[in-house]
Amino acid sequence: MDEIWKKNRYLEIGASHPEAARIRRLLGDGSAEDAGLCVLDGYWALEKAANAGMKVLSFVFCPELLTSEEAGRLFKKYTELTGNVYSVSKKTFARLTERDDLVGMTACAEFPRWTGEDLSGAKLLAVLDGLETPGNIGTVLRTCDGAGVDGVLVVNRKAKIRSQKVIKASMGAAFTVPMIEFSSVGECRDWLSARGFSVYLADTRAERDYDTEPYRFPAALVAGSERYGISRDWYDGSENMIKIPMRGISDSLNVGVAASIFLYEMSQRLHAEL
Amino acid sequence: MDEIWKKNRYLEIGASHPEAARIRRLLGDGSAEDAGLCVLDGYWALEKAANAGMKVLSFVFCPELLTSEEAGRLFKKYTELTGNVYSVSKKTFARLTERDDLVGMTACAEFPRWTGEDLSGAKLLAVLDGLETPGNIGTVLRTCDGAGVDGVLVVNRKAKIRSQKVIKASMGAAFTVPMIEFSSVGECRDWLSARGFSVYLADTRAERDYDTEPYRFPAALVAGSERYGISRDWYDGSENMIKIPMRGISDSLNVGVAASIFLYEMSQRLHAEL
Repeated sequence: MDEIWKKNRYLEIGASHPEAARIRRLLGDGSAEDAGLCVLDGYWALEKAANAGMKVLSFVFCPELLTSEEAGRLFKKYTELTGNVYSVSKKTFARLTERDDLVGMTACAEFPRWTGEDLSGAKLLAVLDGLETPGNIGTVLRTCDGAGVDGVLVVNRKAKIRSQKVIKASMGAAFTVPMIEFSSVGECRDWLSARGFSVYLADTRAERDYDTEPYRFPAALVAGSERYGISRDWYDGSENMIKIPMRGISDSLNVGVAASIFLYEMSQRLHAEL
Repeated sequence: MDEIWKKNRYLEIGASHPEAARIRRLLGDGSAEDAGLCVLDGYWALEKAANAGMKVLSFVFCPELLTSEEAGRLFKKYTELTGNVYSVSKKTFARLTERDDLVGMTACAEFPRWTGEDLSGAKLLAVLDGLETPGNIGTVLRTCDGAGVDGVLVVNRKAKIRSQKVIKASMGAAFTVPMIEFSSVGECRDWLSARGFSVYLADTRAERDYDTEPYRFPAALVAGSERYGISRDWYDGSENMIKIPMRGISDSLNVGVAASIFLYEMSQRLHAEL
């Protein structure tokens, strides 16, 4: 292949260089100073982030590992996204990825910064209250992308909502589905109320089924934590509680699955109205 | 508490005793000779297995760890399920569990052995073709339990369908939802055809949407592997392909989520007919 990186000189760095250290830190639990940053670990992540127009802060590659035509093409594409390009040895690269297959390219990027304005005109939102498992948060994001849910509101945050595990489970939807955190349930309820949202609580004690509910849009679906469900502050006696019928030995579904079933039903209903 | 185990003498064993060794083996990837066996790792698993009437081969407990009234009650219940009761030290118990919290009780049990007869009269089945991730298999089982799906047929098996990971993700549904493996797609299709099943293939290329399809029961929903989808042997030109509309950047949902959305839609439709 045309070894494109030989045409330019790129600084070769080791694992202790600040940029490499930042990537290693982000692959773990991250740190406060890295809030809003992530690693694009794998071709699919690089591709989704590039398509989403995310700001790439640095690009790190390992010449030894880039041996295909495809790699050369992608190298050219991704190096155009940033001026900070570094070269590393294979041994160092192995410390900058969580993948078993060493794909030879990685990057540090900035998450989009969403505000309430990104949700103006929203017709359907998901609210995650106290979810603890990154995989479940990522799964809901992936479903929101698929169903065309306009965004995700987060309250009582128990897990990092932008961790590598969330990104992976979301298959990149974490880069494109607006996600906004609220400091309290009250603040979130007020925000929804001011914008005319009907709020639906996913609650296994509900009497009404999800598939016969006459949803009113704009609508928000609240899903609660894996262990404790939805927090009490959502209930005031006038709430819309809806459930998925349970016909077996368990009293609940996986929260990512349950939220997905609710959100697709609501989305199909909304799109039938439009 | 009433230290109930002091009333009887139980053999104290170490980690190398054949029973302890079998439990340790089953917690890993298991082995051929253990086919059909599993570990009940945690109170919830012991409880679900007891309720499901599973055959318990041995029960192992750690006296030091059983300090609550609740533990005494459960000890009595589970020791009634088998004559093979062993006592272990805390150090040994830690090697017989994958849990961080040492609950002090575990057991080795036999999965129910399902046959085609367990599915006589079935109206709704799931078919898993080549699924690779134990968590996805377990999630589908949990949803089948919730939705009242009568059973799961497995073809092109790529993962152990009765591993500890499957059991955990299924929240015990792996003990109660009949699961039958077929050696080929042809054999599975013939089985379904002989019983009058309409077969629906979950395929992102389908033209028909899952929520407007006029399902005919008995019905089977085929979900394909995470990477390759449904294998070609299912397609003969006359197949029913259905899809979940995708409105975002991804071309698919998590397979456990997608199967759950299809199966709940079908189940709700079936129960509306009944």
